Amino acid sequence: MPPHKLNLAMIGTGSIAKAHSNAFRQVGHFFDIPYALNLRVVCGRDQNKLEAAAARWGWAETATDWRAVVGRPDIDVVDIAVPNALHAPVAIAAAQAGKIVLCEKPLATSLSEAETMADAMRAVPSLVWFNYRRIPAVAFAKRLIDEGRIGQTYHYRATYLNQSGNDPSKATTWRYRRSEAGTGAAGDLLSHSIDSALYLNGPIAELTAMAHTFAPGRDVDDATLLLARFANGSVGTFEATRYGVGRRNRKTFEINGSKGMLRFNLEVMNQLEFLDATDPPNQQGVRNLSVTGPDHPYSNNFWKPGHIIGYEHTFITTLGDFLGTLNQHQPSHADLDAAVAVQRVLDAVERSAATRIWVKL
Amino acid sequence: MPPHKLNLAMIGTGSIAKAHSNAFRQVGHFFDIPYALNLRVVCGRDQNKLEAAAARWGWAETATDWRAVVGRPDIDVVDIAVPNALHAPVAIAAAQAGKIVLCEKPLATSLSEAETMADAMRAVPSLVWFNYRRIPAVAFAKRLIDEGRIGQTYHYRATYLNQSGNDPSKATTWRYRRSEAGTGAAGDLLSHSIDSALYLNGPIAELTAMAHTFAPGRDVDDATLLLARFANGSVGTFEATRYGVGRRNRKTFEINGSKGMLRFNLEVMNQLEFLDATDPPNQQGVRNLSVTGPDHPYSNNFWKPGHIIGYEHTFITTLGDFLGTLNQHQPSHADLDAAVAVQRVLDAVERSAATRIWVKL
Amino acid sequence: MPPHKLNLAMIGTGSIAKAHSNAFRQVGHFFDIPYALNLRVVCGRDQNKLEAAAARWGWAETATDWRAVVGRPDIDVVDIAVPNALHAPVAIAAAQAGKIVLCEKPLATSLSEAETMADAMRAVPSLVWFNYRRIPAVAFAKRLIDEGRIGQTYHYRATYLNQSGNDPSKATTWRYRRSEAGTGAAGDLLSHSIDSALYLNGPIAELTAMAHTFAPGRDVDDATLLLARFANGSVGTFEATRYGVGRRNRKTFEINGSKGMLRFNLEVMNQLEFLDATDPPNQQGVRNLSVTGPDHPYSNNFWKPGHIIGYEHTFITTLGDFLGTLNQHQPSHADLDAAVAVQRVLDAVERSAATRIWVKL
Amino acid sequence: MPPHKLNLAMIGTGSIAKAHSNAFRQVGHFFDIPYALNLRVVCGRDQNKLEAAAARWGWAETATDWRAVVGRPDIDVVDIAVPNALHAPVAIAAAQAGKIVLCEKPLATSLSEAETMADAMRAVPSLVWFNYRRIPAVAFAKRLIDEGRIGQTYHYRATYLNQSGNDPSKATTWRYRRSEAGTGAAGDLLSHSIDSALYLNGPIAELTAMAHTFAPGRDVDDATLLLARFANGSVGTFEATRYGVGRRNRKTFEINGSKGMLRFNLEVMNQLEFLDATDPPNQQGVRNLSVTGPDHPYSNNFWKPGHIIGYEHTFITTLGDFLGTLNQHQPSHADLDAAVAVQRVLDAVERSAATRIWVKL
Repeated sequence: MPPHKLNLAMIGTGSIAKAHSNAFRQVGHFFDIPYALNLRVVCGRDQNKLEAAAARWGWAETATDWRAVVGRPDIDVVDIAVPNALHAPVAIAAAQAGKIVLCEKPLATSLSEAETMADAMRAVPSLVWFNYRRIPAVAFAKRLIDEGRIGQTYHYRATYLNQSGNDPSKATTWRYRRSEAGTGAAGDLLSHSIDSALYLNGPIAELTAMAHTFAPGRDVDDATLLLARFANGSVGTFEATRYGVGRRNRKTFEINGSKGMLRFNLEVMNQLEFLDATDPPNQQGVRNLSVTGPDHPYSNNFWKPGHIIGYEHTFITTLGDFLGTLNQHQPSHADLDAAVAVQRVLDAVERSAATRIWVKL
Repeated sequence: MPPHKLNLAMIGTGSIAKAHSNAFRQVGHFFDIPYALNLRVVCGRDQNKLEAAAARWGWAETATDWRAVVGRPDIDVVDIAVPNALHAPVAIAAAQAGKIVLCEKPLATSLSEAETMADAMRAVPSLVWFNYRRIPAVAFAKRLIDEGRIGQTYHYRATYLNQSGNDPSKATTWRYRRSEAGTGAAGDLLSHSIDSALYLNGPIAELTAMAHTFAPGRDVDDATLLLARFANGSVGTFEATRYGVGRRNRKTFEINGSKGMLRFNLEVMNQLEFLDATDPPNQQGVRNLSVTGPDHPYSNNFWKPGHIIGYEHTFITTLGDFLGTLNQHQPSHADLDAAVAVQRVLDAVERSAATRIWVKL
Repeated sequence: MPPHKLNLAMIGTGSIAKAHSNAFRQVGHFFDIPYALNLRVVCGRDQNKLEAAAARWGWAETATDWRAVVGRPDIDVVDIAVPNALHAPVAIAAAQAGKIVLCEKPLATSLSEAETMADAMRAVPSLVWFNYRRIPAVAFAKRLIDEGRIGQTYHYRATYLNQSGNDPSKATTWRYRRSEAGTGAAGDLLSHSIDSALYLNGPIAELTAMAHTFAPGRDVDDATLLLARFANGSVGTFEATRYGVGRRNRKTFEINGSKGMLRFNLEVMNQLEFLDATDPPNQQGVRNLSVTGPDHPYSNNFWKPGHIIGYEHTFITTLGDFLGTLNQHQPSHADLDAAVAVQRVLDAVERSAATRIWVKL
Repeated sequence: MPPHKLNLAMIGTGSIAKAHSNAFRQVGHFFDIPYALNLRVVCGRDQNKLEAAAARWGWAETATDWRAVVGRPDIDVVDIAVPNALHAPVAIAAAQAGKIVLCEKPLATSLSEAETMADAMRAVPSLVWFNYRRIPAVAFAKRLIDEGRIGQTYHYRATYLNQSGNDPSKATTWRYRRSEAGTGAAGDLLSHSIDSALYLNGPIAELTAMAHTFAPGRDVDDATLLLARFANGSVGTFEATRYGVGRRNRKTFEINGSKGMLRFNLEVMNQLEFLDATDPPNQQGVRNLSVTGPDHPYSNNFWKPGHIIGYEHTFITTLGDFLGTLNQHQPSHADLDAAVAVQRVLDAVERSAATRIWVKL
């Protein structure tokens, strides 16, 4: 039986669009999926960028009117890789047109917007690109937790540090404007950390947060920090900043539980630190696991044990899992409800930062 | 001129008393001090421990009544190495008797107690053993900061993680009882982190905190976490816990500033991580400095470059600096006001954790 | 002007063939190359593997007779991804047929074979896949060396450790048989280390080597170790083993020179350790550079700074550079002479290991 | 019963003499030894240094004639902390006078000298200060090996890198002169690595070595490198250099065996890396053990778990073990025969480096 053909439209031509295009091209090389992806049309505002993207990645056509694109009957999938403020209109229109919707994270610029989007999107299959869930090391951490290897969780601590905001002359993209991004470090970086936390450690019960903007005149947060209590009784700290000078892309989590510890750092994303507190005390030490197989998530998809993968593969695993379950009418793991849950936490963070009080979820 | 003789009395026989005894024995081997320390009397409640301590470290006498000891005219220095709740009565009595007072940290079990102690202790020379200030790597961090190498500070983040509380069958010392310790992780661990922060990054302007106790029935905090704004405009996170499973003594700080980054971890205390953000961008990387000389603080006091020191030397440097300036009628760096300032932050932490609101300092 | 079309044939269907296929698919996405690569035919012995490879990577046809394939007039490029002993016949036939030849490393199973191949291959453009030269961190190391940042080299030390041979029940591929592989760890692992060394530190003047086989009955070396003098006056150690239990793919080099130090580890291939010995002594520390841009080799080809690449990208950069210079009639960096030079060192290693004496090159 | 008093004489006033003095002062604080050490006389050539050493460490007298000192009837122990070439005459005279002899490593400047010394010294208790055997992490490595946790050893690799020789203006001590030191990096650094190897991995069966001097006019080796076969069937590499620019005191060993791996680095001497290859494959990772207790060698002697020790403690443990067994008429572990065995390997290294052939032991 030949694979079912899916015609794709991508809205956006920026750096995330590049990562999505690559995933569309590569997913079939590493995952057994029952679809042939047809890169039908790329849509954006800048004709030069459009033509470059089409030439580079093999999009068959270019277009400038996303409303027209999402309404085209020949399109099966609409991928959204545009500034945050545009996610909602495109996603809602695409869902209403019956398209499969793939939407870059964060889902929306506000909780209410996210909920409106979700209402529309529940009618169709959808994916929100929380790509860092499906790093092999993160998925393996989840497996160890689910197997009880960490025991009762006591602590969850997360940082996401980069230094992108420290040069005001460069920090001028849409990501630094409230009107297009909604928030700054919160939506851009913290959303990833929250997604990982909800995935690995369950719901947050309450939190208190602060936001800070270092650059004069900038209307989004440069840094957002919070304390949290999780529903499982553990306590947490989160810190996301664009002023983490010295750190280029340091997304970490560390979990301390009654039976062990886990630590992850995106900068060395093929590794997972694991301590088994049931080992004899004098042999307990943080193990540096190379999560490249054997017997690790996704290790059969890519290369031989010890041969690392990188940033782009996080999109490929996300897409591979989505397409692998698409025809089973099962919810994808990184699904819509999870993305709304992240947005709900971000909303609580914003409210707490504004009111300076603890907020329950 | 022969060195001036100082007769010492030590109150306490526990593990900290061991570290103090060692410092008394060793300081003259590594520092040029104009004093001969005479270990005159060790005082405690348990005769076996007293005799063991005296035999081991050469205390000339043992005693069981600290009030009698601090009143002895032949005693010049009273060293306090007893549970926190006893710091105040001993220190006040010793100060009133005109003795030089050396007091283990934290200074007191409450701010009001600390202020009462300070009122009495200002009349005499005194030292509070915040020994982690005078680690070569920490002192070198301070020097780099003072020289402007980090620029404007954006972020300060500190953790102090151990796993001492995770075994309820073992966690039964005075450190786990409010009546003797005042607080749990806050006074034991967080106080060190706060001292480092005030030393390196200046005053905290406001904070919001949470405290948590994991063990049923325990009446002190197992973990205390906080967010802070510093007077210099930077923002901070602090986390101190006895449930940091997998970590035995992990006291860290990381500072991100406009010109660089610093990171320290007590587990590898001879090292300091430093990034110079004024290096060419493609050559910027976190440098792992071996702070063992040359041209590092205290490097001439101990061994040749590359030869590391350990936990006990933090007491020796603290004492060496104190004795080196004792006859100059200058305040010691780790002085009384600094210890009260730490207590003031701990007090704000307790109040914030109780009221769940931001507290200004 | 439309890109020139190149029709490719690949001989082989194993794990290296997968990496090559991926590079053919991906190179145009990340490099500006004036060619359109057409995956025309994949050739092998196992029809199931052939069909799987064709389906997965889009090879238009399959074939089982490599001699027929290399003679096809519609083929422009022959890629060789078969066991070492087959490199020579395929490469020579392809070169004689005027094809561009891409050959997996090591070039040959012996020096004489390599020289015979080279004689034939000099008539055509060719590439030997010494893919680890063109890791950004390695290329950046080369740049720093060439700029004089390391000064006079004193020491070069290299290891390549994996544990593939430790399980005799698994170590049964052609790589463990002399008839197909020529050598064991020497050709498989050491060849990469030698290539890096010649690239970074220049010719080896003389060496003494030992080879050892741990597994009874195996007729290739499990480990090869050597001491070397380089023409530039530095001294070196090399160790390559399949019994480096605990290490999955640890290819390292460390260079100590009068002005600095460099260290690389393939397991964290996006990083380069660099020490600048001209920094003030108290600020000298090994810098952990994230070689992901800005201003690093290949950083504009892939993702934003801080976003890592992996194993497969080493093939992409190698191919990208080759195709970028193909029409300039310039030799590619990782060219034929370099591959022969590696073989010459491997030959000296074999002779020294057999005779137990120093061998000059 | 009061402890037996031992009167000590120390010959030497340099940096090693400082470490020995410290050990004499400290051993009783951390080890239960049935002796009271009486620092009776320090002997050297420079009166200023002598008086400084006596004042600093409490040596009761100074002397300038070592022959007179070793013959004094009131002296029980002679400690030798002078340049290597003086070890033999002092040790032999002291042994002939019936003194307990403590001798700094390496034992001698040649094998024949070492054997002559040993002949004399066998009549008395003696210690050779191979202090790095008795680091807790190294002793724990030995325990794991003896318990079979590493299985059959395949590989042993050792480096000892510092950069002391790289500044010719500074490298002017006796350590850089053949007449006083015998050898350069070989006796100074490699001897430690050989001692560790013999201790952990057993005898060396044969070796091939090279020595190199980078500085013009210097008559000792700046670097010595070798390949070895051990009697147990494993193969090894050793590298010792004073031109390891970027490394201040990097003494490492790594052992790969059929059941696991061990790695040690003196720069972080409180840690031991351990991989258990019998763990499930997906949970195998190099564990970073903090060898500070509980249940680690010497962990009860010093501080609480997680509180590190340093360079000086390696002398204290060595002395503590020696004194602990002195009255049991048992050989000390780091005993004379072991020191002669190291010298025998150093002799083979010298011969191999001179003749450029493999040398059997």
